[in-house]
Amino acid sequence: SFNLAADCNAVLKGLQPIFQEQGMTETVHNWEDHGYLATYIKKNGSFANLRIHPHGLVLVDLQSYNDHMKGREEVDQLLNKVEERMKELFHGNIKRVKRLPAILRGGVIDRYWPTADGRLVEYDIDEVVYDEDSPFQNIKILHSKQFGNILILSGDVNLAESDLAYTQAIMGSGKEDYTGKEVLILGGGDGGILYEIVKLKPKMVTMVASNIDQMVIDGCKKYMRKTCGDVLDNLKGECYQVLIEDCIPVLKRYAKEGRMFDYVINDLTAVPISTSPEEDSTWEFLRLILDLSMKVLKQDGKYFTQGNCINLTDALTLYEEQLSRLYCPVEFSKETVCVPSYMELWVFYTIWKKQTD
Amino acid sequence: SFNLAADCNAVLKGLQPIFQEQGMTETVHNWEDHGYLATYIKKNGSFANLRIHPHGLVLVDLQSYNDHMKGREEVDQLLNKVEERMKELFHGNIKRVKRLPAILRGGVIDRYWPTADGRLVEYDIDEVVYDEDSPFQNIKILHSKQFGNILILSGDVNLAESDLAYTQAIMGSGKEDYTGKEVLILGGGDGGILYEIVKLKPKMVTMVASNIDQMVIDGCKKYMRKTCGDVLDNLKGECYQVLIEDCIPVLKRYAKEGRMFDYVINDLTAVPISTSPEEDSTWEFLRLILDLSMKVLKQDGKYFTQGNCINLTDALTLYEEQLSRLYCPVEFSKETVCVPSYMELWVFYTIWKKQTD
Repeated sequence: SFNLAADCNAVLKGLQPIFQEQGMTETVHNWEDHGYLATYIKKNGSFANLRIHPHGLVLVDLQSYNDHMKGREEVDQLLNKVEERMKELFHGNIKRVKRLPAILRGGVIDRYWPTADGRLVEYDIDEVVYDEDSPFQNIKILHSKQFGNILILSGDVNLAESDLAYTQAIMGSGKEDYTGKEVLILGGGDGGILYEIVKLKPKMVTMVASNIDQMVIDGCKKYMRKTCGDVLDNLKGECYQVLIEDCIPVLKRYAKEGRMFDYVINDLTAVPISTSPEEDSTWEFLRLILDLSMKVLKQDGKYFTQGNCINLTDALTLYEEQLSRLYCPVEFSKETVCVPSYMELWVFYTIWKKQTD
Repeated sequence: SFNLAADCNAVLKGLQPIFQEQGMTETVHNWEDHGYLATYIKKNGSFANLRIHPHGLVLVDLQSYNDHMKGREEVDQLLNKVEERMKELFHGNIKRVKRLPAILRGGVIDRYWPTADGRLVEYDIDEVVYDEDSPFQNIKILHSKQFGNILILSGDVNLAESDLAYTQAIMGSGKEDYTGKEVLILGGGDGGILYEIVKLKPKMVTMVASNIDQMVIDGCKKYMRKTCGDVLDNLKGECYQVLIEDCIPVLKRYAKEGRMFDYVINDLTAVPISTSPEEDSTWEFLRLILDLSMKVLKQDGKYFTQGNCINLTDALTLYEEQLSRLYCPVEFSKETVCVPSYMELWVFYTIWKKQTD
């Protein structure tokens, strides 16, 4: 029903008055073969783009500098008028009408934290609780109405106070008995895993967090207490210790000493997304950690780690390939878990040494 | 570091060449007291808006009509150049740089389904499986890579194949024994509740779905089989029946006949969001259903229903107020559940008759 330059022009002429009534001045660009772009400018600094494509797509974007409800009502009224006029012009023969929520930019609070698979999602952030740069990364803790405080490292949502599901998944989803066990945590700076395991009366939990994690620990022990309780207040407790050291030399030392663990929980980072050659060193690092972890894991022990978003199938496959390249044969299982603040399903791995008959 | 008209002008002059190198022609609007809007137009129908605010906010929007990866790479390169130039201009003194994923509009697949609390979220939709208008609503079933098929009624995400958590929550979160019980389901056109309860060997499940649900049932029994199994293939099974009738007269009939149920599960709609007077009839309808349901609920029976998004506190409070206005005194509890495809936490209610001593 809409396929001619004449229709393009009819839309332009039909909608023009709506913008002009607002006291907006018009500039029109006519591409001839690509339709029109009309820009409407208001004295207060707002403007609108009306893009009319010859095959029938009409896009209206309004941009204004204010966050007042009055401004939003005005926008809604304007868009209602555009919608009504379009329906009149095409006698209701419009395939689809869609209005998206406003995108808020430039304010103190940034509500947009894309998922690992690159989708745009808006969070209900209402407060910046903590925002610091360490020499290694940016560390933010933002408050969400529904998720509580959220830890965001260099733009990646790491963990929210609502995300016990993450901690439970990387501890084996409630199927393990930690009583009297020796546990090694790599990373885990938010303290969530440590806090949950200490409740389960293990023999000893050793958490190895590097310098990179120091500021994460500082932020979390203050603002993520639903996640870590009081466990980060001291680096030593009755059945746990936190070492602020790089994990590679620690693992090498333990391997040399013959120190063995029932559980090794790797909470360092997610599986690398990129599969480009520059990332080779990341994959090598990952294999080194895995190899050293297997060396300190008892024959019947278990190694837990996060994978990544279920949609990043290539990255997950590449990770699984690494598992066949370790010094000892291993087997693995995986589980997909819904972590509330992630807005995407997340894969977790359990890895164990292949038992010889 | 950025607060003068001179700086505005420096940004404009600094970024101009980047757009001009692309063969884009420039139109500049100068508000004097509100900064600049520069529009750059390319021959192929793409354009860019560069909005420079005098207090230091610079917004760059690119709009183009294509979905090719090449187009995206070009956009990324352009934005990289803008970012570099800005850092040069202000000697790295830039408070924040943020780049959002592209918003895709006008295609066959619509990926944007805002949450109940009005946030913009992008889904990983890759296929339109079903899209029909009934006289009552638009019914879509869209395929998501991670969530499976998603039922969307008039733009609201209703249930995805990943959302067993919803069905379990509205059945009492695994704490109920349905064996040998009489169960009444109101609504539930996707068949999820019916399918899960039938597995638990109830005496009889009656599901009352109105004409409004007929096309939902038709779509779901074909495309949501992970949710409903084969239970919607026939309107009658060994221990269940589906009535295609308005639930009010059915409830009145059962009340008159003295037919009583162990469980009533109301899966008709979420709690109304609006609290405006026009919605009074919605609240009245809701109370009528509640009153009639209590009449057919055994003295020790339970009534389950969904509430709404946890952030809609006013709507939830209003719902809870209705519960004190029923013909008989009731008590209630609520639970917050993470339903994977919802991208927001959801509240569920359990309601029971107050026991007299």
